[in-house]
Amino acid sequence: MLPQDTPRLQDMKRCVETLQESICAALEERDGGRFGSELWQRAGGGGGRTRVLQGGALIDKGGVNVSTVWGEMDTAAAAGAGMAPGPFAACGLSLVIHPVSPRVPSVHMNVRCFVAESGRDWWYGGGADLSPTFPYPEDFVHFHAVLKGACEGAAPGSYAVHKKRCDEYFTLPHRNEMRGIGGVFFDHQREDPGSFCLVQALAEAFLATYLPIVDRRRGEIWTPEDKEFQLVRRGRYVEFNLLYDRGTRFGLATGGRAESILMSLPREAAFPYDWKPRRGSRAEEMIPLYQPRPWA
Amino acid sequence: MLPQDTPRLQDMKRCVETLQESICAALEERDGGRFGSELWQRAGGGGGRTRVLQGGALIDKGGVNVSTVWGEMDTAAAAGAGMAPGPFAACGLSLVIHPVSPRVPSVHMNVRCFVAESGRDWWYGGGADLSPTFPYPEDFVHFHAVLKGACEGAAPGSYAVHKKRCDEYFTLPHRNEMRGIGGVFFDHQREDPGSFCLVQALAEAFLATYLPIVDRRRGEIWTPEDKEFQLVRRGRYVEFNLLYDRGTRFGLATGGRAESILMSLPREAAFPYDWKPRRGSRAEEMIPLYQPRPWA
Repeated sequence: MLPQDTPRLQDMKRCVETLQESICAALEERDGGRFGSELWQRAGGGGGRTRVLQGGALIDKGGVNVSTVWGEMDTAAAAGAGMAPGPFAACGLSLVIHPVSPRVPSVHMNVRCFVAESGRDWWYGGGADLSPTFPYPEDFVHFHAVLKGACEGAAPGSYAVHKKRCDEYFTLPHRNEMRGIGGVFFDHQREDPGSFCLVQALAEAFLATYLPIVDRRRGEIWTPEDKEFQLVRRGRYVEFNLLYDRGTRFGLATGGRAESILMSLPREAAFPYDWKPRRGSRAEEMIPLYQPRPWA
Repeated sequence: MLPQDTPRLQDMKRCVETLQESICAALEERDGGRFGSELWQRAGGGGGRTRVLQGGALIDKGGVNVSTVWGEMDTAAAAGAGMAPGPFAACGLSLVIHPVSPRVPSVHMNVRCFVAESGRDWWYGGGADLSPTFPYPEDFVHFHAVLKGACEGAAPGSYAVHKKRCDEYFTLPHRNEMRGIGGVFFDHQREDPGSFCLVQALAEAFLATYLPIVDRRRGEIWTPEDKEFQLVRRGRYVEFNLLYDRGTRFGLATGGRAESILMSLPREAAFPYDWKPRRGSRAEEMIPLYQPRPWA
């Protein structure tokens, strides 16, 4: 059986395609705008659906993408994915929302499943992290508490492990800071059926992690100073994604659709030289929170 | 003799420090603003002077940096620099100008010298490239013609080789386009004294490559559509520098001063999803010029 025809991959495909629709619908309801929908095919096998909403009332740029791809993995690509070379299939959902308002945080969530060697070798991965630019600790506690509930429900004891991994992964070592306030991140999970339950729980928890924060903050008046800090932090987001994010680099190196991969970048970002927050500003208050700390 | 004490490195240091002052002075004269000046020290040895002008009348963000660093190179860093592990010294000048006006192109120029093994192993490298966002072929011909003169004066027959290498290097493979209209690029040049003459000629030609274009274009009225395209192309500039530029990645990976390295990023950039130029626009006319072609 080809990796893409295994029940494991087909289950994942159904799961992420269903979630793509329900997540887009819930976000459209909040925004008032509509996600576009582009089907694309990959030359080597498979393809995906990219759904992007840009220039909305709530969402400045947001994408909710699914893809199911397959083919032959060469040695380099295999090393990157932690697999043996040969036939493989991969299925995933990847979501990034950059809101208009600096009071509403950016958010990312991703789940993925790799299958190789006719289904004998496989793993699941996933993650979710929040990138706020205004210090609302109660929002960060909420985000982590929902993630904790999802992880613990699927795999007791797993939240602490995945939270620590997230703090390590979504980090800009050249600045000694995280891109946001973390969340969870895990990779190469090979428990049956626990790992699929975990990615399902994570993906299904997305709306509960994020919408309450959106609803609480979207009506707030924000200042030009808030916007400036948001654009600086979006610059850091770009730095992380292009310098370090494995999914971005792996996707581009293996000929993925550039526009679908780079939907994760904000519509606008700033890279001022040697930027410093104003003394006593909310930005200055936010900066220490881009370090690992217990939230839930 | 330590690599940093060799006449070779000391000559390079004098050359780039003198040029830093004269280039900044000429640019300040055009802009009306002043370059800042930050001296920094590197923990492992050496340091540099970072000079940045931001928010000027002409220059939105520009940096002219010199650094002279030394220490012990470990195996990974040595592989990146194409050297043997052990004591090394490196000296260079790195310059990036992102103007306010979309009619005035961004420009980059860099020269560098590596010395290792007590001066027995060494090489020079350099490059200059132009990133315009408005189709003025006569400006691109001028830029290349001056570079050609500099290269041919120092090393007859070298322009064609370095021009081709630049077309290959300053490329975004995931978009199958160059970041600009090219220039010259070379690395690991080991001719004595030809290679030092070449980097000197390149660095000294900078003002002649760029100022005539600045003077010709800075007074032009530009439109919001011009600005939009400039910001999109600045996004591509960021993509290149963070995804592919070896100097940026090597500098950050080896603990260089992040703000000095990332001065090359524009103050503002845009990453809209699946951006397309308006039919019949000047942007549409510009896009085919981001492919290799003979200019001089």
